[in-house]
Amino acid sequence: MKKVSVLGAGGWGTAIAISLAKDGQQVKLWTRTDKSAQNLNKTRENIKYLPGAVIPANVTISSSIEKSVLNSDIIVIVTPSSAVRRVCEKIKPVISKDTIIVTASKGFEQNTLLRMSEVIQDVLGKQQPVAVLSGPNHAEEVGREIPTATVVASSKRKTAEIVQDAFMGPKLRVYTNPDIVGVETGGALKNIIALGAGISDGLGFGDNTKSALLTRGLTEIARLGVAMGGETVTFAGLSGIGDLVATCTSTHSRNWRAGNLLGQGKTLDEILADTNMVVEGVKTARSVNHLAEKYNVEMPISKQIYKVLFEDKDPKEAVTDLMLRGKTNEMEEVVITQNAKW
Amino acid sequence: MKKVSVLGAGGWGTAIAISLAKDGQQVKLWTRTDKSAQNLNKTRENIKYLPGAVIPANVTISSSIEKSVLNSDIIVIVTPSSAVRRVCEKIKPVISKDTIIVTASKGFEQNTLLRMSEVIQDVLGKQQPVAVLSGPNHAEEVGREIPTATVVASSKRKTAEIVQDAFMGPKLRVYTNPDIVGVETGGALKNIIALGAGISDGLGFGDNTKSALLTRGLTEIARLGVAMGGETVTFAGLSGIGDLVATCTSTHSRNWRAGNLLGQGKTLDEILADTNMVVEGVKTARSVNHLAEKYNVEMPISKQIYKVLFEDKDPKEAVTDLMLRGKTNEMEEVVITQNAKW
Repeated sequence: MKKVSVLGAGGWGTAIAISLAKDGQQVKLWTRTDKSAQNLNKTRENIKYLPGAVIPANVTISSSIEKSVLNSDIIVIVTPSSAVRRVCEKIKPVISKDTIIVTASKGFEQNTLLRMSEVIQDVLGKQQPVAVLSGPNHAEEVGREIPTATVVASSKRKTAEIVQDAFMGPKLRVYTNPDIVGVETGGALKNIIALGAGISDGLGFGDNTKSALLTRGLTEIARLGVAMGGETVTFAGLSGIGDLVATCTSTHSRNWRAGNLLGQGKTLDEILADTNMVVEGVKTARSVNHLAEKYNVEMPISKQIYKVLFEDKDPKEAVTDLMLRGKTNEMEEVVITQNAKW
Repeated sequence: MKKVSVLGAGGWGTAIAISLAKDGQQVKLWTRTDKSAQNLNKTRENIKYLPGAVIPANVTISSSIEKSVLNSDIIVIVTPSSAVRRVCEKIKPVISKDTIIVTASKGFEQNTLLRMSEVIQDVLGKQQPVAVLSGPNHAEEVGREIPTATVVASSKRKTAEIVQDAFMGPKLRVYTNPDIVGVETGGALKNIIALGAGISDGLGFGDNTKSALLTRGLTEIARLGVAMGGETVTFAGLSGIGDLVATCTSTHSRNWRAGNLLGQGKTLDEILADTNMVVEGVKTARSVNHLAEKYNVEMPISKQIYKVLFEDKDPKEAVTDLMLRGKTNEMEEVVITQNAKW
């Protein structure tokens, strides 16, 4: 039995806490406000973000982050990406050097463009063991114990295997992967493509259009991820294509939903004002605009999404531009042509 | 303007004929029976397979295959895969040595295990120019002029480009690809994974489960395709992941629908008796069982689908076996471990 702290009681944090508790771990779930902690303790259900799933009795809920992480073997951070640095600073004085920090937050830090695992080690030091959790994992389905597969990546095999053991359960299959950069960038970048898929659906286009966008989206995600140090093959796995498909084809995804509203003609401000959730893809689109430049990588879909989000580009024109322009030899489109036989 | 014959007036054949006619080609559409030709000519609509789409006046419809292919520049074969050899034998005496034969039929010949382009050249000779058309292309959406991308593969660049020019239109973007083996195997093999995705959905599992199946499905498709001579990168393109996603996540797909009914407890015989369409994935599952053995390739999903289809394996047990057994290091699962850093 491991002592695991889950920091962040949104849908995914709550689902992780429930899943770990059912696997027999001793779980503490931290939520930001006293009121939320009281509510969760009273109802044993996260009515706002994960309705219908019972939080087992062996999950301790608290709004004290110091209490929540004390003596933990593993700490899982599931806050919005913008809160990860702050959370790390808060727990730094309390945690041990051996505690494994797992990030389930997906995105890049706005000003530094750091990945979440880099933010964690920036605050806690390079020696702190860190892992990334990512994959095709809708919280709603993990909460309902739908069979699910996920990936734990760490540069240290032992670290990945400890987290794998803690998370593995009859309905949650956990794979390890040494490519922390690939797993982490795949998880963050797919949110932009999900916005694009939502826009396409919102405009009334079909599965043909969306599948083409998704295919080309994976190509550009992998292009940037590899430039940042990831392995190509990781993008063919659960945290690459798997997460991309789950996010782009499911109404569970809030990034898809935001895109869908954009496609229907709503403005970004209207959408963000209406939703009480963080739409990570919006922030990621901004970061990726910088990252694509920094690494000198072509990212046509991300570029068009950026223009729709921040430069008032007409969504229909953006999708049409993506579908109808550019190269027409697929090998030139997908990779550098070294493999082409012609 | 090209003279194009489309052989087979199912949903996809009809959509192709309409699309080509709108692009200004001179199109002849062949349908097997006199009655069907009369109906199509009278209503100018394929009510059975593509309701709602008008067949333009510049499409000539006939049940005489010899008349339909006479003097054609391009012949597109869109029959069930089991009929391709017969069709080629019929047109052989009439066509010219320069006529380009395009196969849009997806599958392997049952006894020989040949790809469709190989069947065509087996009958018409190695010198007959051949191309493969494949991608995320639901006929229903092409018929409604939804923006769509597709791939034309041929070992000869000139052949691919002629077909590309004929098909390219404002709503249909056509890419060329030199990897005929990769494009063709991707299109055929994805039908088995679509059956699996349908089974998972029919059992009431979720997007998490389906995304994991799809990810692992792509891996095994690529594994066999590469063993047969295809390029890995092709499976990351429109005819690989693109077609796979379109087929597994859309209710348009008859393979998905058949799988869905299997998941709900119907037997294969009941399903095939009820549907008036060919479910290519069922035949492909049989062929792939032999191909996996011939090329000594591990194909766990195809194997489980085969057992459900032909050995009365319980679908729930099959999906559970797939989700919960086997390796747990993703790099071992996805590729030979030469890339792993651990």
